[in-house]
Amino acid sequence: MRYFTDTEKSMDLKEINRAIETAFSDHGRDLVQMPPKVYITLPEGDFRTMPAYLPSLSLAGVKIVNVHPGNPSCGLPTVMALTVILDIATGMPVAILNATKLTDMRTGAAGAVAAKYLSPKKEIVLGLIGTGRQAEAQYLAISQELDICEIKCWSRNSLHAEKFAQSITEYNARSVSVEKACDCDVLVTTTPSREPVVRSEWVKEGTHINAIGADAPGKQELDPRLLKRGLVFVDDMAQAVHSGEVNVPITEGLFTTGEIKGTLGEVVIGMKQRGSPDQVTIFDSTGLAIQDLAIAAIAMRKGRTTDLPFP
Amino acid sequence: MRYFTDTEKSMDLKEINRAIETAFSDHGRDLVQMPPKVYITLPEGDFRTMPAYLPSLSLAGVKIVNVHPGNPSCGLPTVMALTVILDIATGMPVAILNATKLTDMRTGAAGAVAAKYLSPKKEIVLGLIGTGRQAEAQYLAISQELDICEIKCWSRNSLHAEKFAQSITEYNARSVSVEKACDCDVLVTTTPSREPVVRSEWVKEGTHINAIGADAPGKQELDPRLLKRGLVFVDDMAQAVHSGEVNVPITEGLFTTGEIKGTLGEVVIGMKQRGSPDQVTIFDSTGLAIQDLAIAAIAMRKGRTTDLPFP
Repeated sequence: MRYFTDTEKSMDLKEINRAIETAFSDHGRDLVQMPPKVYITLPEGDFRTMPAYLPSLSLAGVKIVNVHPGNPSCGLPTVMALTVILDIATGMPVAILNATKLTDMRTGAAGAVAAKYLSPKKEIVLGLIGTGRQAEAQYLAISQELDICEIKCWSRNSLHAEKFAQSITEYNARSVSVEKACDCDVLVTTTPSREPVVRSEWVKEGTHINAIGADAPGKQELDPRLLKRGLVFVDDMAQAVHSGEVNVPITEGLFTTGEIKGTLGEVVIGMKQRGSPDQVTIFDSTGLAIQDLAIAAIAMRKGRTTDLPFP
Repeated sequence: MRYFTDTEKSMDLKEINRAIETAFSDHGRDLVQMPPKVYITLPEGDFRTMPAYLPSLSLAGVKIVNVHPGNPSCGLPTVMALTVILDIATGMPVAILNATKLTDMRTGAAGAVAAKYLSPKKEIVLGLIGTGRQAEAQYLAISQELDICEIKCWSRNSLHAEKFAQSITEYNARSVSVEKACDCDVLVTTTPSREPVVRSEWVKEGTHINAIGADAPGKQELDPRLLKRGLVFVDDMAQAVHSGEVNVPITEGLFTTGEIKGTLGEVVIGMKQRGSPDQVTIFDSTGLAIQDLAIAAIAMRKGRTTDLPFP
């Protein structure tokens, strides 16, 4: 059994996007086993257990990932993750990966795949609501698929937004008001908000939105009127209804599962698509265990390892 | 983060029984978080993911365990397991344990706790149906709670039963017919059978049965008439209905969930008990994630470790 440490080093973002795209394609064709993630509540946060089997890669395993918002105050990341990989022939654990950065990257890659298929423009102004680790992962991954002309970012903490914008040297990036950040071609929301941050009237026709932040019951970032107005695609139906951007509007009776247009997998395989370039499209991402397997397959070819005795 | 290898060495069986008993007591009082285990089917077997949080021990984690019946032909155990332990304050993974032997031991301990509370006799003739690793774990754990006068064992493979009986030097143990093995005070079934092995007429009044083997849909070891005749206690209601001894009879309409008398946790806290010493009692064990956490707590005080970098 091998333990992989610095798994994210020297990984190619384009290669990751393609691997994630293939995983979504398998999901769209119903070729994977992936029960909805299981939540356990801890005193200061929670952890999620995500088992899956991806036959096309002959890969099975489980990601275990926590969310503890108070962690930065003690010098730890809010989100940390470990992935255990099993040999599919014998069920034996063969690898354990530090998957903290891989989790950021595979979520960024899902956003890139969604933007590739759903943005009607290939040269885009990118709006970022929220300027944390996931905002960075999103613009880096999206930049592999679309030409970014400009980045407009906003955070509740304007100092943080300023700093984030300054850290981006390869694009024209600046910190703006939330309303101005929403005036873009591809909008990415990555906040931990529990009430809408993005108002429908700020979003112009033809915008594609990656709604990333909502990943637990009670979380939401978008004005429910945006969901009514746009075409909503989810990563996984069961997970999105339970904990994605649509979870609160569905619970409150403002939106129904029947209004979900389809899954990203169905978009990737061409079964579903946006109608006209003037529609708003929304990708509701909760994060899939098959994304974790797909990126683990790449990381296991690149990372540094320690051998561990097993069985 | 620490990796624990030879976790089962120098562990005290009595200490394990008490820890498992306490975990069941917490379960009976509804003080734990433990969603039903999640099954993923692989080409030659399956694996189960078992997350839980046991507040009384401040312990959270996930056991990942496979069942691959063909493994012995390539020199690997049928069942192998890994447990990941998280720090409950931060969600950070702090330990990984090789849990293959711990799984045997914690299942044996559950049988011992059930026999302690449900066998009307303290000096017992022990019947073992199935003579593999789990049969050994059961008699070793039960011997800590009850006085074993004699062991009668049976296996479909009589040579294997002979060898098993000869390996037991501390008790009068012998290989007998299946009918004779069932004529005992405490009967333990540990086979992978998919049809009843134990017939109701072979079991005398007052016998306590640990039904251990059935742990997946379609598996069963006992004549359904035994379930109707006896008092059935399960380890966990949802898991037992899905994959325990009762799963086939319930699916076939021969038994109902309403006929389940209660859980072992309820027995341990005194909420439920056998009625008279003449009744047959049955403990339907599927294996709980909280058992894995409870035994991990002991193993982490004893095992040899390797330090691994994380985060």
